[in-house]
Amino acid sequence: MRISQLSERSGVAVATIKFYSREGLLPAALRPGPTRTDYSDVHLDRIRLIRALLEAGGLSIAAVKRVIAAIDDPEMPLDHAFGIAQSAIPATRGERGDADLGGQGAERVAELIADRGWQVYAENPGIALAARTIDAYHSIGRGDLLRSLPAYARAAEMIAAADLDAVAAAPDRDRMTETVVVGTVLGDAMIAALRRIAQEHRSHRAFPVDGSGPGPAEPPRARPRAAEPTRTEEHPS
Amino acid sequence: MRISQLSERSGVAVATIKFYSREGLLPAALRPGPTRTDYSDVHLDRIRLIRALLEAGGLSIAAVKRVIAAIDDPEMPLDHAFGIAQSAIPATRGERGDADLGGQGAERVAELIADRGWQVYAENPGIALAARTIDAYHSIGRGDLLRSLPAYARAAEMIAAADLDAVAAAPDRDRMTETVVVGTVLGDAMIAALRRIAQEHRSHRAFPVDGSGPGPAEPPRARPRAAEPTRTEEHPS
Repeated sequence: MRISQLSERSGVAVATIKFYSREGLLPAALRPGPTRTDYSDVHLDRIRLIRALLEAGGLSIAAVKRVIAAIDDPEMPLDHAFGIAQSAIPATRGERGDADLGGQGAERVAELIADRGWQVYAENPGIALAARTIDAYHSIGRGDLLRSLPAYARAAEMIAAADLDAVAAAPDRDRMTETVVVGTVLGDAMIAALRRIAQEHRSHRAFPVDGSGPGPAEPPRARPRAAEPTRTEEHPS
Repeated sequence: MRISQLSERSGVAVATIKFYSREGLLPAALRPGPTRTDYSDVHLDRIRLIRALLEAGGLSIAAVKRVIAAIDDPEMPLDHAFGIAQSAIPATRGERGDADLGGQGAERVAELIADRGWQVYAENPGIALAARTIDAYHSIGRGDLLRSLPAYARAAEMIAAADLDAVAAAPDRDRMTETVVVGTVLGDAMIAALRRIAQEHRSHRAFPVDGSGPGPAEPPRARPRAAEPTRTEEHPS
């Protein structure tokens, strides 16, 4: 197809397609004649990947380049290409500041990884993020909240299993990489959203208020699962 | 204690403590004499909460005010105060744009909530975030990735159970609210971090490369759990 058709089918302006080409993000078009360039579905898929990385993934053009170079390199093992894709994702909230790599956080992450039997490279971006976040809990005096870590780790395993199923279902390296980046970024937002919903559901169970509408509630006395309603309209104590 | 001691023990400047007071974030000091003001551990705990909400939680002063007004209102049920705290947390990434509240995303979230038997108010901030995120998957043509939703929802339940245990372990409303906000924000970062680590671990298992160091790898043929090594140094095929 001509560049005008590629533009129409991808919804991306001709000037933008030319910019992607100059930046080396798009493979060269076939040149059936000296004045014609010809594009195929390969180009369409690649434009789609670029848009997904830029828009849903929030990657910079430089980061998109690195990711695309990795997936275009046939010598690059897939798990390594995925690592590059993961690392290209911009910092998530809570990730501010540096981890003290010999510090408490780094040690606790190493322990957790050993406990779970996880096999990972030291460069995994999650390791530094986890270390920094553990340091942040300690810096505000809430190291007690780290008791949730084992439950979080089990949940992360469940999430990662679903994520890898999605990657394995993709037909080629382009689509797999798109799945890694898009799935990671949108998945983080989705999990955060579902966590808030599940928290509220659990909160009603843990801190029940009888009757309809707002009313006074006592602080819970015991573990949430064991909590009895603190007052009832029917049986005032 | 005097304001100077409160400043020293909290690590917060006297001018900042006075600012918190003027903004109505701190309860009034005791006034044992016309020229003396006296602060207690209640004030120290409250300053700690304010710092945690501002710094770890990323809340604005206006949002901190709303959260503190909710926990200071004895008529406010705890689960409702938690909802206010949750809603005060600034938008997470992926949350850009509006959800089409009659749209595909909103419908799918309602379905998921019904499937899980979750009891939540329509104002739960996770509902709109989930709807917008589902719309984002569709807008880039990756609605297929929503197959991960049930696994994500089960993981969210596991996370929320740990979160509510942490809230229930807190001694009073101030500390419980701090736990809701700090635990939600730092917990999001922690779960995102552990997810990346678990993904890499799973990725090595799903797309194994034999031998040490990088080398060529075939794209996987089958489901990750069933994948056999695609080549071995010892037994070339």
